[in-house]
Amino acid sequence: MISDRAKQWQSHDPFLVKAHFACADDPFDPGTNPDGYVNFGTAENKMVFDVLKPLLQKHIRIKEPDTHYNQLHGAQFFREAIAEFLGRRAGRNLSPNNITVASGASAILEMLSFAVCDPGDAILIPTPYYSGFDHDLALRSAARLIPVSLAGPDFTLSISAITRSLHESRAEGGSVRTLLINSPQNPLGYIVDDDLLNELIALADSENIHLIIDEIYAESLLPGNTLNSVLSHKNAVYSMVYGFAKDFGLSGYKVGIHYSEDEDIVQTMQNTSYFHTVSMETQRTLTGVLNDPGLEVFLDTMRLRLSKRYRTTVEILTSCGVPHTTVQGGIVLWLGLRRLLQSPTFDAERNLYRNIFSMCRVNISPGQAFHCVEPGWFRLCFTMPEKEHNEGMRRLTGYFADI
Amino acid sequence: MISDRAKQWQSHDPFLVKAHFACADDPFDPGTNPDGYVNFGTAENKMVFDVLKPLLQKHIRIKEPDTHYNQLHGAQFFREAIAEFLGRRAGRNLSPNNITVASGASAILEMLSFAVCDPGDAILIPTPYYSGFDHDLALRSAARLIPVSLAGPDFTLSISAITRSLHESRAEGGSVRTLLINSPQNPLGYIVDDDLLNELIALADSENIHLIIDEIYAESLLPGNTLNSVLSHKNAVYSMVYGFAKDFGLSGYKVGIHYSEDEDIVQTMQNTSYFHTVSMETQRTLTGVLNDPGLEVFLDTMRLRLSKRYRTTVEILTSCGVPHTTVQGGIVLWLGLRRLLQSPTFDAERNLYRNIFSMCRVNISPGQAFHCVEPGWFRLCFTMPEKEHNEGMRRLTGYFADI
Repeated sequence: MISDRAKQWQSHDPFLVKAHFACADDPFDPGTNPDGYVNFGTAENKMVFDVLKPLLQKHIRIKEPDTHYNQLHGAQFFREAIAEFLGRRAGRNLSPNNITVASGASAILEMLSFAVCDPGDAILIPTPYYSGFDHDLALRSAARLIPVSLAGPDFTLSISAITRSLHESRAEGGSVRTLLINSPQNPLGYIVDDDLLNELIALADSENIHLIIDEIYAESLLPGNTLNSVLSHKNAVYSMVYGFAKDFGLSGYKVGIHYSEDEDIVQTMQNTSYFHTVSMETQRTLTGVLNDPGLEVFLDTMRLRLSKRYRTTVEILTSCGVPHTTVQGGIVLWLGLRRLLQSPTFDAERNLYRNIFSMCRVNISPGQAFHCVEPGWFRLCFTMPEKEHNEGMRRLTGYFADI
Repeated sequence: MISDRAKQWQSHDPFLVKAHFACADDPFDPGTNPDGYVNFGTAENKMVFDVLKPLLQKHIRIKEPDTHYNQLHGAQFFREAIAEFLGRRAGRNLSPNNITVASGASAILEMLSFAVCDPGDAILIPTPYYSGFDHDLALRSAARLIPVSLAGPDFTLSISAITRSLHESRAEGGSVRTLLINSPQNPLGYIVDDDLLNELIALADSENIHLIIDEIYAESLLPGNTLNSVLSHKNAVYSMVYGFAKDFGLSGYKVGIHYSEDEDIVQTMQNTSYFHTVSMETQRTLTGVLNDPGLEVFLDTMRLRLSKRYRTTVEILTSCGVPHTTVQGGIVLWLGLRRLLQSPTFDAERNLYRNIFSMCRVNISPGQAFHCVEPGWFRLCFTMPEKEHNEGMRRLTGYFADI
């Protein structure tokens, strides 16, 4: 009874999602389930709820107008609060009219894929990348993802690598319409520097591709780092994607944000937001949070805890001799576990993943799920609750020592 | 920069949405804006907030697990509450596993269109129908809508009319994959009776088309009527669409529901709900409302007020000699204003619409927006706040008397 396209989706089985729910069915709890799974695989910040809760609590409201239809791309008051919040990142005034709100950053990415790509059109994306992008950008919109394969140990992103992939793809007849860059980058943790950002904008312009910068980890910065936000660029064509899932630890509220100054893109995003509208209850709550003088305290506390946790995690990894990337922003570490592989293959990587999952009951995500071209890399989210984090690190270091 | 498909969406300008926002920009208010627009055009129940508010207020909660990822097709606790609520309508136990929650009934319909139709596949739908369906079912999914044109004054739905359209369309090479029926019907207000429902299920089965029954007005019943819900049918293949927008007056919370016992359909809907996930904050609140013993009191009060308002509205219309349908369920009346047309054409209908909009500053929706084949019909939503309703009726009856 289902359509041919729906049959194709059934075969799509997102690795990270599956691993997440396997852990969620039997989760570690220091008191009640000390042998449960420790989930370092899902990128969530679980270190901020105590600071966020009073903010949320203060601003939940039942208001009659919120029970009725409002603008489907986000209520004016919410988009105004977002514009002001993003404006601080941009260092300039942003118009609420350029903002589209939708039910999560995944929804925003899917909408963008529809907006920019016809079926078969291609999206360039450097590897390793968050594997949810496969799902978000290509599943229903029928666009194609073309990986720009970067090599370890640094996986350095360069304009030349992107240009090479672009020209190769075009030479093969591919219609490349867009380039997706993530900064701070997941899983690598670097921030795209100003020079590269300028080059990316210039490349997109000269090659007539739409530049999407996913800044979902924009506020999760480690000490000494600042984000060179694409939002600071006036008179440039790009899409900026953001959301509350990561920096606010609010993945459950499913709120994504799109900003662009390209009128056609904005119009298209606002048209399709109709199908992804966020509950006015949540728009109201988050407006209160964004406008609250306590917001900066919340973000500072989040960053302080992030930094402390990063430091202790890195100390443990270093003491175990596990190489890892230096994180400028984000909540994940990229670990080089190649020396633990029985052979330098993805089969061996999968075996290592399975062993850690079944023997340690710890979920860390194998690099293949991120389209990494080198076997042996794993992603670890270091912002779990303290007891879970400590238990997971204890199990992992024990495992590393044993083999 | 945008895709070819996105360019097509730009030309789509939903009439009802546009009229809604024209009114919202300058709305009637008895105290502050007595000459503002009275909006009888948007189908919303604005007579229940005082009863709903304490229920919502009682159940809003900030809970840590709700801030994190949960099942994307709806949290188990929410789907359990929905299963119990819908089970009362069904007269049998329904499994929460068959339920998909998404950001509004429009999202559910779009997801269904993707799930059942490949691009170009057709959906049969009797006219007059809610014009949002054009947008929901065909815009992004690229399915086609085939109207089953019914004639006034009763617009009686029959299996023979549907079968004729189906066979005609197939003879022309159309791939008809689904049939959408709305009960209680918007804009006509009838309920599909048991015999017809059985025939529809049998037709869908024998013709291998997927039957979608949209029961969005299921609880908004006028005295003496009961809904023959498709949910009471076991071992049948169908999709039931519901949501909180109409019966609960909660269009702003954007929560739609899908129920089916077809495994492939359920799986596909749950796959794509990923892009339409409802905020856990709102799932939590509505779970509380559904499980509250006060729910039945709320629904009874809603129906009592609906019935009173319907009676007084019909009295006024009758005194003006305006023919109208008898409403069994729903919140709208279908008015025959043909005698006010200067000629029996849609141009004249549009002129009448414009005159009423500009001279009375009242928005009622012309039949053409519902693909009605006869000019002169208008839809009026009779569940506005009392003062707005009275003012609108005063203006309308004055206008009717004058011409």
